Amino acid sequence: MSKKIVIVGGVAAGPKAACRVKRLMQDAEVTIIDQDTLFSYGGCGIPYYVSGDVSDESELRSTSFHMVRNEDFFLNAKGVTVKSGTRALAIDRKSKVVKVEDVASGEKQDIAYDTLMIATGSRPFVLPIPGADLDGVFTISDLHKAIEIKDRIAKGKVGKAVVIGGGAIGLEMAEAFKDLWGVETSVVEFMPQVLPRIIDSPIASMVTKHMRDNDVDIFLGEGAEEILGVDGKVTGLRTAKRTIEADIVIMAAGVRPRSEIAVDAGLQTSPMGAIVVNERMQTSDPSIYAAGDCVEVMHLVSGKKFYAPLGSLANKEGRVAGDNMAGIPSTFKGAVGSFIMKAFDVCIAATGLSLEVALAEGFDADVALTAPSDRAHFFPTEAIVCFQMVFDRRTRKVLGLQGFGPMGDGISARIDAAAAYIAMGASIDDFGTLEMAYAPPFSAAIDSINAIAYVADNLCDGRLRKTTLDSFLTWMEDLSTHPDWAVLDIRHPLEAGPCVDKFGADKWVAIPYNEVRSRYQELPENKELIILCDAGTRSFEIQSFLDGAGRQETLVLSGGMNMLRRMGIDWYPE
Amino acid sequence: MSKKIVIVGGVAAGPKAACRVKRLMQDAEVTIIDQDTLFSYGGCGIPYYVSGDVSDESELRSTSFHMVRNEDFFLNAKGVTVKSGTRALAIDRKSKVVKVEDVASGEKQDIAYDTLMIATGSRPFVLPIPGADLDGVFTISDLHKAIEIKDRIAKGKVGKAVVIGGGAIGLEMAEAFKDLWGVETSVVEFMPQVLPRIIDSPIASMVTKHMRDNDVDIFLGEGAEEILGVDGKVTGLRTAKRTIEADIVIMAAGVRPRSEIAVDAGLQTSPMGAIVVNERMQTSDPSIYAAGDCVEVMHLVSGKKFYAPLGSLANKEGRVAGDNMAGIPSTFKGAVGSFIMKAFDVCIAATGLSLEVALAEGFDADVALTAPSDRAHFFPTEAIVCFQMVFDRRTRKVLGLQGFGPMGDGISARIDAAAAYIAMGASIDDFGTLEMAYAPPFSAAIDSINAIAYVADNLCDGRLRKTTLDSFLTWMEDLSTHPDWAVLDIRHPLEAGPCVDKFGADKWVAIPYNEVRSRYQELPENKELIILCDAGTRSFEIQSFLDGAGRQETLVLSGGMNMLRRMGIDWYPE
Repeated sequence: MSKKIVIVGGVAAGPKAACRVKRLMQDAEVTIIDQDTLFSYGGCGIPYYVSGDVSDESELRSTSFHMVRNEDFFLNAKGVTVKSGTRALAIDRKSKVVKVEDVASGEKQDIAYDTLMIATGSRPFVLPIPGADLDGVFTISDLHKAIEIKDRIAKGKVGKAVVIGGGAIGLEMAEAFKDLWGVETSVVEFMPQVLPRIIDSPIASMVTKHMRDNDVDIFLGEGAEEILGVDGKVTGLRTAKRTIEADIVIMAAGVRPRSEIAVDAGLQTSPMGAIVVNERMQTSDPSIYAAGDCVEVMHLVSGKKFYAPLGSLANKEGRVAGDNMAGIPSTFKGAVGSFIMKAFDVCIAATGLSLEVALAEGFDADVALTAPSDRAHFFPTEAIVCFQMVFDRRTRKVLGLQGFGPMGDGISARIDAAAAYIAMGASIDDFGTLEMAYAPPFSAAIDSINAIAYVADNLCDGRLRKTTLDSFLTWMEDLSTHPDWAVLDIRHPLEAGPCVDKFGADKWVAIPYNEVRSRYQELPENKELIILCDAGTRSFEIQSFLDGAGRQETLVLSGGMNMLRRMGIDWYPE
Repeated sequence: MSKKIVIVGGVAAGPKAACRVKRLMQDAEVTIIDQDTLFSYGGCGIPYYVSGDVSDESELRSTSFHMVRNEDFFLNAKGVTVKSGTRALAIDRKSKVVKVEDVASGEKQDIAYDTLMIATGSRPFVLPIPGADLDGVFTISDLHKAIEIKDRIAKGKVGKAVVIGGGAIGLEMAEAFKDLWGVETSVVEFMPQVLPRIIDSPIASMVTKHMRDNDVDIFLGEGAEEILGVDGKVTGLRTAKRTIEADIVIMAAGVRPRSEIAVDAGLQTSPMGAIVVNERMQTSDPSIYAAGDCVEVMHLVSGKKFYAPLGSLANKEGRVAGDNMAGIPSTFKGAVGSFIMKAFDVCIAATGLSLEVALAEGFDADVALTAPSDRAHFFPTEAIVCFQMVFDRRTRKVLGLQGFGPMGDGISARIDAAAAYIAMGASIDDFGTLEMAYAPPFSAAIDSINAIAYVADNLCDGRLRKTTLDSFLTWMEDLSTHPDWAVLDIRHPLEAGPCVDKFGADKWVAIPYNEVRSRYQELPENKELIILCDAGTRSFEIQSFLDGAGRQETLVLSGGMNMLRRMGIDWYPE
């Protein structure tokens, strides 16, 4: 008799597993249950649908060969039955039955399974604040909501938008509103930076500056306290510090696993409600699999389970679940948490652990920063990119990498290579010799990823002593915080000159890079010198030289002016 | 007393090692000897200098902060002495002395060393054919030659160019001649494909087609037999098949290690003359290091030493040599042989072993091909990319990856991630779950690199049975080679129809992908069906279905029409 496979949830992991298991077991009866009528869509494409980059919602539900993935498609092309508009109410594990309800008619039914898979995904976290139920308040949770948001914009009903949450979806939605539709847009983020926990503050500052340069207002460290409305319709948002007018409010405050059905069935779940699975995507009931946004997976760096609701992981987990349901013992070992997003003209990406998370996880973590050229510096399309590498001082393992650069695939190349390497436990030394395919239009002979590994190597061995960007910026705001500090600016005199004029020669000493060897005796005594150049590389060379010359009271400003400029500083003389 | 470090060769590995060791040992006396007056340049940039993308040769000798790396720069900025125009004649290992000669004056001198490094690089292979010494015949070996080539073009002296050698430098030079200067350009390659041993024939065919589409003539399988001239000046090239007129001939037939000085000193070298070094870049004499194009390094896939003359490796090896000369036991473990190049509007890249090399090395090697979208298929900048994965059937290890796609960094991202993974010994299964940072503007939820791993997985487990591109193309040229074959075209009827019309319904059966489940009984009996779609993915689905339906006489055409179209086929009805 043919095996009955039932899959609850039809967005990403569910359909992937369904099609895979059907291919592997042509005689199996595979059924997907989804409460929605629109399913199997690319949810990550919603901001691009709202912006207009994707013109019709059906494109998000289509294959690459332009067939809409509806019930007929799954039946005819895949041999998979989809019961859409059907809500799964409960699992009876003893009788191996899923109790379902037709959403429209309320009619109930029992669906028997031999193997069950839960792919119920996530739901957006709705902040418990007054006004959350007003007309015009949206979460980004399904295609219907996306269609309505776009419809309102297209009809000219949205002049002002507020996004609650400066995570990836929040920022992508802000860009969608602003870039194509010219909507006056604000982002309110409770934490003191955008993209909290994903990237650390230096790169987050660059993102914030770039968003602001593109006329998106960003308010950091401000919680949303009340959504304001008149006659049931949203009119604005109140934070502790201000009231912002709005015709639409997007709540993008993260997502939570949708796992009630698993909890009710007595399956093991994490404290936050994610379903616990093994490497074969099996829950605590061997007949029930789970994958996608409703499960937690192993973090390959921290060695702990974590919650990583991403469509790309959902698909990979779904394939592994499909294999196992068909008797192929594939494994999904875990993830390193790779992240990437477009924000107007820039790209931001990360993999592994941020410094903040690494420290919280107990690593002896530190960071290297650098801001070199992304390809041969003589090649016309060359641009500056900024990278931060997080490493463990004791083991020399690379824990994470974050990058910021112009829009394109150049940052991808470094972050993806790092993700592969980090998943395999690579060290700083491995990164130093990582082989980025080299030709001048694509990379530098010493690629940016090698360069940052060199910085980490020099830091780890104590050859490079640095000040943090934070300490330096604090000092620039208030020179009394380090009365004994002075900058040693080794850039071209035309670059250094205006700073000397502004801050005075006792606080800002300018000696060009190639003159330090002959002029270092001019350096002030009894000062700790913060060595500053464009990317930080030359500063380290000068520090090494001064060490040899007996002038060891120096610190390098990693990443140099290239970093500072992208973070947006107001004290720099233009 | 300060240690004397002498480095012979000042292009890439030499300067890198010199500066590194000086930073680590500020009291060392570091001297670079180079026979040329122009040194420390980005040799890989020469084609872009000739094309005009790089306007002045000094840019190839400059730092990213626009200082020319001449003798003064090295002395003042780096504390390193460069003796340019000085040829190293011999090493007296007993007395620890290098005998040198001033190239201009002929004056000889002994330079004592405590530690010596050989970074003498490579020299172009000059074909032993008549006419190789004619005026107008160039190799791409140093900046002087590059300057003269560009000078001749700029002065209008070059109307027709012939490049001998279809390797990377040959193709880059051909593009330089053609693209910016409009020179009538031909490439003559002795082997039956361009980029031999680096990439396999399917991708090589795509490169050839793209070069020809851009009006570069490519002659394959034709050896250069004689360079023709009049009055000592080149006028053309004669092969076994034709004579091609030329005002300039570029000989780009590969390079050989420049290691005479090492051989004469009795250091261990390989049969081809590359200096043998250990992981610390030490030669058979512990006081002598070597790095760059004059050494051989370990291939991390084959486990054998190989010759990899690349500026990027030279720099990495140079840094390791610098560390070790200063007493830091860094290691350079080897390389996977990553390769990338721009050819007009496309990018070609590879890492690891090609199928040809893998088979020659004794692996149980096979290939997977696919041609999917490079990012979310609904994102406006989406494009088709072609990948070939080489894997070992017995161990399931990935041995190599080759890619072809539009110019940009998208191919880099996949090849660089693959290089990191392959260097760590990753398997097909690792590639299936490789975490490419995902957002629609950058990648697909199932990225192209995951997709090709899925193909390899299905091939390896015997679930996917394929025909090779070669067999299929041979059959299309002469249908009698497989009288029992027919195509099962599962594409849209508008795509399949013209082929049915042309080849007849007995040879070309068209049933759309989503109708096969209901119409498979229409399929002809006693035929082996070659299933054809755009990328190969749907074909596998249909093969799986037909297997379940008892119709197992099928083969998938991996890569499908997307591959065929890019290879340039003349039998396809337009």
